[in-house]
Amino acid sequence: MSGLESSGVSSGGVRSTGIRRKALPSAEEFVKGILSGDKMILARAITLVESSLPAHKELAEKIIDACLPHSGNSIRIGITGIPGVGKSTFIEAFGMHVLSQEKKLAVLTIDPSSQISGGSILGDKTRMFELSKNQSAFIRPSPSGDSLGGVARKTRETIYLCEAAGFDTIFVETVGVGQSETAVHSMVDLFLLLLIAGAGDELQGIKRGIMEMADLFAVTKADGDNKTRAELTRVETQSAIHFFPSNENGWTPKVLSCSAVTKEGISEIWTQILEYEKTLKSNGHFEIRRTDQAKYWLEETVSEHLMGDFYARMKDLYQDMEDKVSRHKISSFQAAERLIEEYRKRNHT
Amino acid sequence: MSGLESSGVSSGGVRSTGIRRKALPSAEEFVKGILSGDKMILARAITLVESSLPAHKELAEKIIDACLPHSGNSIRIGITGIPGVGKSTFIEAFGMHVLSQEKKLAVLTIDPSSQISGGSILGDKTRMFELSKNQSAFIRPSPSGDSLGGVARKTRETIYLCEAAGFDTIFVETVGVGQSETAVHSMVDLFLLLLIAGAGDELQGIKRGIMEMADLFAVTKADGDNKTRAELTRVETQSAIHFFPSNENGWTPKVLSCSAVTKEGISEIWTQILEYEKTLKSNGHFEIRRTDQAKYWLEETVSEHLMGDFYARMKDLYQDMEDKVSRHKISSFQAAERLIEEYRKRNHT
Repeated sequence: MSGLESSGVSSGGVRSTGIRRKALPSAEEFVKGILSGDKMILARAITLVESSLPAHKELAEKIIDACLPHSGNSIRIGITGIPGVGKSTFIEAFGMHVLSQEKKLAVLTIDPSSQISGGSILGDKTRMFELSKNQSAFIRPSPSGDSLGGVARKTRETIYLCEAAGFDTIFVETVGVGQSETAVHSMVDLFLLLLIAGAGDELQGIKRGIMEMADLFAVTKADGDNKTRAELTRVETQSAIHFFPSNENGWTPKVLSCSAVTKEGISEIWTQILEYEKTLKSNGHFEIRRTDQAKYWLEETVSEHLMGDFYARMKDLYQDMEDKVSRHKISSFQAAERLIEEYRKRNHT
Repeated sequence: MSGLESSGVSSGGVRSTGIRRKALPSAEEFVKGILSGDKMILARAITLVESSLPAHKELAEKIIDACLPHSGNSIRIGITGIPGVGKSTFIEAFGMHVLSQEKKLAVLTIDPSSQISGGSILGDKTRMFELSKNQSAFIRPSPSGDSLGGVARKTRETIYLCEAAGFDTIFVETVGVGQSETAVHSMVDLFLLLLIAGAGDELQGIKRGIMEMADLFAVTKADGDNKTRAELTRVETQSAIHFFPSNENGWTPKVLSCSAVTKEGISEIWTQILEYEKTLKSNGHFEIRRTDQAKYWLEETVSEHLMGDFYARMKDLYQDMEDKVSRHKISSFQAAERLIEEYRKRNHT
């Protein structure tokens, strides 16, 4: 069992129940534990980051503040792919390879659609059995039942804590094929898209725009009878990539193939990731991307707050205006102006 | 000369100058003129839409309101491509073909980078010489020296006026390779990307993401010595498209080639556009896209206003926070929270 379920996070001893619950450590104790690489403390701190209780939030903020100067020393890798691509087995095999390179690996899962509170961790332990037993690996399922913005924030702050705890390789796995890919793309250094061999249909489930986000592609299940088809998909995808506009960061996305069963191609993916890191660190784009991401999340969070507040206050009129613009009864801009005018009035009364 | 320079739009006769300037028509007169297809009046109305004078804005709003019920009956086509692709000659040749199909064509140009106020119209007249002479065509250059949001608004409202004036085919041409493609994509029914024959380098100038926006591709300059290369590019691009995720609207983007000199392939592009329109109108996605666009611009305009207002009031602290998140001294989310807290305080004093 992981630390997070057994930790019994609470804001103090609760006498009335008659059970003396473990008191919450102080921010200093949390930070000390995290910096020493204590996975149990790390898990408890992440639980605080995910909590909506004001006392927890305050404590979490202090911990993050103290951990930030110790964060950043990792490569953050986003991993996505449609269901059926074999993401779990890939992450298990690829993660074990990363660990064999003397790395410390944290695997975070992001799944805004999940409503099963906390429950998915047992699933994660099962589907990444080998990884979950390894001392140098840390597996953490998605914070669930939240907005995408909330999940993104929690995931990003969890990354900081994992880095401060010495994890130098972070996987952020997306589940589902929704908007989460865009959010994850905005918090990782490299975006790895897993593909399945097939004749074009393999992309039916991938949303438009995601192809162009990827820095690296891997065709999975390149073994047995499937090997030839996987190689064909690899070659075809590589030639399609050629038609994608080039990256500003000087990197041309590569397409590889691999098998989680035979382990063929697994180490090559890691080699390409190191090559990517080297290229972007030498031309400065590694840091540029991180800086852009930090600014993006600042703006995004402010904007989300302002729009949320606006919508809450203006709901009736907003829906009315939205209805009118949808039926082309009023121009979108005039509708916006009326909304803003009314908003100003309400703010001044 | 077009109506817009000679129209001498003003808010009334100005006696003090000793010159009696032509008085501005009333909203009713404008609307009557536009609905009758008077290009001179249309040009003057667009000048009002572009004006920043409060009296003009108010009048423009009335005109748009009255024209909206008469708008929408057109196909709006976005056309883009990197410099050197031969956009002007393509639009001239393609536009003449459209006119030969008994259509009425308005060509709008969007170029947020242009700072030359009004000056580009002569350039447009020169580069689209044949079109500019045609009674059924209306050419209007970009409103210049403005923000992208401002340009987008003016272009979208100009589309309404052109449609009310009976133009059933609207080209929105983007100049430059900046953000404007995204804005244009959000206001047209179909996005046509012009490609130039070459060995991969042709896409160097196209920003990532734009490829996946296109509903139709045309390789230009497919004539003379270049014909074989153009055909090769066409076939390669078509096979690359195969790797793009499919559209939700049931349309698979096509790649064609054409020559503005020999006119080969020009009519096929129009045929494909009609086919596209037919497909999307029969499955409902034509209207869905327009509705989504109307909602998008409503939200975008409100958001832009709120963020602009926020930034104006919080500039110092925002820059300070942006600086801190860029140097990873504070998490983006905590920085956003501090900004919002301070914003609330300032709003209540």
